[in-house]
Amino acid sequence: MQDAIGVFDSGMGGLTVLRALRLRLPATNFVYLGDTARLPYGTKSPATVVKYAEQAAKTLVDRGVRAIVVACNTASGIALEKLQSHFAPLPVFGVVAPGAQAACEVMDGSGVLVLATESTVGWGAYQRAISKRRSDAKIFARACPLWVAVAEQGIAAGDLAEVVIGHDLRGFEFTGPRTLLLGCTHFPVFSEMLRRRLPNHQIVDSAETTARVVASVLEAQLQVEGTANLRGQVKFLATDGVARFKRVGGFFLGESIDEVELIDL
Amino acid sequence: MQDAIGVFDSGMGGLTVLRALRLRLPATNFVYLGDTARLPYGTKSPATVVKYAEQAAKTLVDRGVRAIVVACNTASGIALEKLQSHFAPLPVFGVVAPGAQAACEVMDGSGVLVLATESTVGWGAYQRAISKRRSDAKIFARACPLWVAVAEQGIAAGDLAEVVIGHDLRGFEFTGPRTLLLGCTHFPVFSEMLRRRLPNHQIVDSAETTARVVASVLEAQLQVEGTANLRGQVKFLATDGVARFKRVGGFFLGESIDEVELIDL
Repeated sequence: MQDAIGVFDSGMGGLTVLRALRLRLPATNFVYLGDTARLPYGTKSPATVVKYAEQAAKTLVDRGVRAIVVACNTASGIALEKLQSHFAPLPVFGVVAPGAQAACEVMDGSGVLVLATESTVGWGAYQRAISKRRSDAKIFARACPLWVAVAEQGIAAGDLAEVVIGHDLRGFEFTGPRTLLLGCTHFPVFSEMLRRRLPNHQIVDSAETTARVVASVLEAQLQVEGTANLRGQVKFLATDGVARFKRVGGFFLGESIDEVELIDL
Repeated sequence: MQDAIGVFDSGMGGLTVLRALRLRLPATNFVYLGDTARLPYGTKSPATVVKYAEQAAKTLVDRGVRAIVVACNTASGIALEKLQSHFAPLPVFGVVAPGAQAACEVMDGSGVLVLATESTVGWGAYQRAISKRRSDAKIFARACPLWVAVAEQGIAAGDLAEVVIGHDLRGFEFTGPRTLLLGCTHFPVFSEMLRRRLPNHQIVDSAETTARVVASVLEAQLQVEGTANLRGQVKFLATDGVARFKRVGGFFLGESIDEVELIDL
């Protein structure tokens, strides 16, 4: 596939990043790799995450991509610099810095609440990235593991989603920081519900902010055509569960997924 | 540890089986192995599950156990016969046959509803085990992946658990089979809630039924002392996430877990 951009994640959550990228770069081709056989990365040791991320990136490079987007919070937080140095001068983008940067731009004195998986919250990559940019920021974080499970069921609205989201926002919904940073690639599916529940909050979606950064850099560096109407093609690769990838992946991507190639890493 | 029984699972869910075993065999020592680095097994290929199960069983055998309980539905469904033949004459027990047998004993003409993970339901081990025993049984099955996520948060009661359980029982709570088979090692934590919601249903808990079978066989074959008051010891092994194992594992086991040895398989 010509001049494609490679995107990888441990699973299907990164498809929300691909969705945002396709909205910004509709004429661009993409190769998406979901390492579904070895998810989740969040419970693996840092050395293992680096090894897996390098294998995924290498596979994309072998397919001829001209840039890589690490659409996985764990891999972005742990392996991004190693990937950038290993694959230089190929541009390699993560999701943590764009999300943190966008949160810093919109937050007020009430601070920011990072919503992410248990491992992302525990690892603290978003918290560090925000502190680095605004040392005075009040930073709160909450692990929302149930959100992933609900999203994986293709549920983004209704009683069940409302109860789960209310449960994990308890203590924060009516007081506390007025900026929420969605620090997990699964969470953009809840953006609409969150905006309705919290109309006076800023909701920063790291998928969207990553796509914005990638598009602006690539438009400048590589003369990627960002405004054409012609839709680019997407090639999907997964390391396991191809049937489930097609079925659930479409929910995250917002388009149906017809063909997924099973690969081994 | 002398004369211990080995128990393994892909993670912590199997601790509900260990809990049931300890209630029946309080004087017996146990070694519990959670392959937390490689969970879930349910999304892996059968060949991979067999390999992982053999590695786990080998580790327990190397620790001198005199019987093995496969406290994992995926591994029981896929690898049990291979383990039994590989490690004969060591007794190797699974969780599927005892659960299916118990369900067949209590079910009436309305049939049985198997509640399990997506992969267990899809793989069909419980459905086949029930059909083999009662070819006329009406068998229904529903995947309840959110129950695992809720249990992993240490939540077994309250609004959130009620909504999640009600969501996955929709269409079954007031009509349909009056026997429920809990075909996932995480689900016994919801037994109390299910018995309250469905007071006229039979709730078959495969952890409890497995423990009953193991205790009766071992008492007969190995003169295991099942009635002593002295509590046996438990050694915990895990392949990753030792801190989380201690914190969440106690919820499944019903006892606090003070020490977990990190091992590599």
